[in-house]
Amino acid sequence: MNLRIRISVLALLASSFVFGQESDSAVARRIFTEELTNGKSYEMLEYLCTRIGSRLSGSPQAAAAVEWSKQQMEKFGFDKVTLQEVMVPHWVRGAAEYAVIVNSKAIGSREVPVLALGGSIATPPGGITANVVEVHSFEELEELGKKNIQGKIVFYNRPLDPTLISTGSAYGGAVDQRHSGAKHAARYGAVAAIVRSMTTQHDDVPHTGSMRYDTVGTKIPTAAISTNAADLLSSLLKDDSDVQFHLELHCETLPDVKSYNVIGEIRGSEFPDEIILVGGHLDSWDVGHGAHDDGGGCVQSIEVLRLFKVLGIIPKRTLRAVMFMNEENGMNGAKEYAAQAKAKGENHIVAIESDAGVFTPRGFGVYSEGDGLAKIQRWLPIFKDYNIYQIEKGWGGADINKLKDQGTVLIGFRPDTQRYFDLHHTNSDTFDKVNKRELELGAATMAVLVYLLSEHGL
Amino acid sequence: MNLRIRISVLALLASSFVFGQESDSAVARRIFTEELTNGKSYEMLEYLCTRIGSRLSGSPQAAAAVEWSKQQMEKFGFDKVTLQEVMVPHWVRGAAEYAVIVNSKAIGSREVPVLALGGSIATPPGGITANVVEVHSFEELEELGKKNIQGKIVFYNRPLDPTLISTGSAYGGAVDQRHSGAKHAARYGAVAAIVRSMTTQHDDVPHTGSMRYDTVGTKIPTAAISTNAADLLSSLLKDDSDVQFHLELHCETLPDVKSYNVIGEIRGSEFPDEIILVGGHLDSWDVGHGAHDDGGGCVQSIEVLRLFKVLGIIPKRTLRAVMFMNEENGMNGAKEYAAQAKAKGENHIVAIESDAGVFTPRGFGVYSEGDGLAKIQRWLPIFKDYNIYQIEKGWGGADINKLKDQGTVLIGFRPDTQRYFDLHHTNSDTFDKVNKRELELGAATMAVLVYLLSEHGL
Repeated sequence: MNLRIRISVLALLASSFVFGQESDSAVARRIFTEELTNGKSYEMLEYLCTRIGSRLSGSPQAAAAVEWSKQQMEKFGFDKVTLQEVMVPHWVRGAAEYAVIVNSKAIGSREVPVLALGGSIATPPGGITANVVEVHSFEELEELGKKNIQGKIVFYNRPLDPTLISTGSAYGGAVDQRHSGAKHAARYGAVAAIVRSMTTQHDDVPHTGSMRYDTVGTKIPTAAISTNAADLLSSLLKDDSDVQFHLELHCETLPDVKSYNVIGEIRGSEFPDEIILVGGHLDSWDVGHGAHDDGGGCVQSIEVLRLFKVLGIIPKRTLRAVMFMNEENGMNGAKEYAAQAKAKGENHIVAIESDAGVFTPRGFGVYSEGDGLAKIQRWLPIFKDYNIYQIEKGWGGADINKLKDQGTVLIGFRPDTQRYFDLHHTNSDTFDKVNKRELELGAATMAVLVYLLSEHGL
Repeated sequence: MNLRIRISVLALLASSFVFGQESDSAVARRIFTEELTNGKSYEMLEYLCTRIGSRLSGSPQAAAAVEWSKQQMEKFGFDKVTLQEVMVPHWVRGAAEYAVIVNSKAIGSREVPVLALGGSIATPPGGITANVVEVHSFEELEELGKKNIQGKIVFYNRPLDPTLISTGSAYGGAVDQRHSGAKHAARYGAVAAIVRSMTTQHDDVPHTGSMRYDTVGTKIPTAAISTNAADLLSSLLKDDSDVQFHLELHCETLPDVKSYNVIGEIRGSEFPDEIILVGGHLDSWDVGHGAHDDGGGCVQSIEVLRLFKVLGIIPKRTLRAVMFMNEENGMNGAKEYAAQAKAKGENHIVAIESDAGVFTPRGFGVYSEGDGLAKIQRWLPIFKDYNIYQIEKGWGGADINKLKDQGTVLIGFRPDTQRYFDLHHTNSDTFDKVNKRELELGAATMAVLVYLLSEHGL
């Protein structure tokens, strides 16, 4: 081979290999191709959703999900798979809840779709029936005061703002009503609190979710009604002060239960003490399948490490797939993980969470106190080949946020958000709502980012 | 008011108004807000899908869709609504088709999901039963030659490439089998042609679509089978040369029918002779609702003009919403529209088509022989506020493509593509697959582009 030919050959190789070193773009292409042709994320999610199902902390299904995650990671040959013990709350819904608009001049009585909020106490047997006060903020509640609220049911009805392009922002602007509505209403003597479901949709699907009581003070039962029911109730209340609401909840909080975070690891070849975490939360609400929230994020995280194994990519830094327990109603898994990381002096250089649904990937939100965002944005050209354009300052995720004070750069995987709050915390969040390619594209997108981080650090 | 205060006020106003002139960004925000709060696109699509339904050219439903479009545009107060006469083919499916894998050593006989391709002739009464030759390209067909094909059923089984990120590109790389498979197979004496459905999914849903015969030569019946059926048949053929396929089609082509393009117009205030077209195709296949293909594109196009009316925006250039007839099996509407535009000397400066589904908008593909693409890319900063990042060289659309030789800049609306070919040309393309916000975001995105074009020209 003469020199000229040799140079040509080298130039050719350099297009995908940089002198023996495969280019980042070439690895990215290998990752996407593998995932889109032989990916396992969809079949993992099918099992988790349809064979195990919803898995609220403390439930038998949550225990099954722990065992299943461990077996998956062991089967895929990760270097180490550990269970990290964590005590979790154990709230149960009990018999199906029941809610009725009663005593309306216009419609008489009508049953409406309802779900108790997670953590709520039950109503007394036979339920509560009371007049309704509609409010849209805690300020409005304060203005009304005890004299207008005592003995009534407070109805929070501030909708998600549909004009926000990010449905997550719309959710963030309304969720205080669900989370703290009962606590505030109880301070003014309300007997129960109901809340408009956290969705931009107008439909008959109630959305559950977390709420917190004051540690002292009266606890009152609380539930979400569907947006259609909220609109109906609101319209009836306009002309008719006699309208009442009847609510029956049978939920209760049982003693805490021992559970686990599940942690799979591939040890780094050059900088094993620098940890790159990718995770989701293994628990879900007790309705639907917890498919988008957050079974999808869990299988994508496992898949990221599996792709390294199956493609023979040896990471320079240590990779961890973490299935956090109890994100939905306590965050105890996240707290325990962060506490142990701190106690052991572990160095998590970066943590990535997928907990915003598993629709078509759009990019990442990055929280960094240093130049982490700018460093990651350098890689945008690689992602653009896969229609990923958004690497922006943003929220990482509820679980990884507990690592914030350890200086970890926090990255939230961002899929398209338009459909997420149609399903979030409902009976509709089922496996059939997940598109195989969208799930796989997300897993591959995360794997590429993890690869770049493991090669180049932060 | 002193000068300093006056300057501050002006500066404040300038943030959304440029000296009495509302900024482009402010108009964009008004358009999105109106569409996301009071949009009519979703209720229009519900009517078109659930009250009229699928609407293949020549069908009574296509006639209903023409009348409905006209009434909608008149109701919204467009300046002019016209029907443009066009003769269209009238193909009917007849009684449901029937297909069976027969004589397999492994499974005996098994019925498989099938749809005749649009334009196919029927099988003889009682159907055709014959041995099967599987091929993946016309080259392979040629290599096999008449001696291996004569008297058999040719089975085209080249899948869509799942590693392509754009499913449209994957479709483009496989659709020759559907479109021209029967024609090629007939030349070698095949008695029928069957084709793997045009989807990346592995499922039981057959996908119909257009096909063309040679103008001279033998015509043979042709149909699509589901991807699962294709995989099964292919696996059986590997070990068993006795496997046969039985196909019964009852379709026929009736005499051409008079139909219409429907054209709504708002006249431009400054440059009325410069036309900006936005459109979709009103016809669909005769399965499902034609919801994504292309009812959604039609209602988005009507909605663009409605938004101008309801927001009181007077366009400088003339806007036209065009519902093209017969895109699916003949393109006669598009041909007629372009021919009349040419005959009248009309100046279409730009044409935008929405015919790629109505999922979350990602951007636009632009075909321009001049600097049209660069000019439109100037507006990217406005679109980025709505998560629109892609304004790229690309395909406009089948209908507007007929305006190409008139120098019109052609723009294809680009939604997310991952789910589109799960539904395309199937019984699954129904109204419930359309997400309200995604549809509305698309309509608003198109309206903003039309606004910018009407203000600034090209």
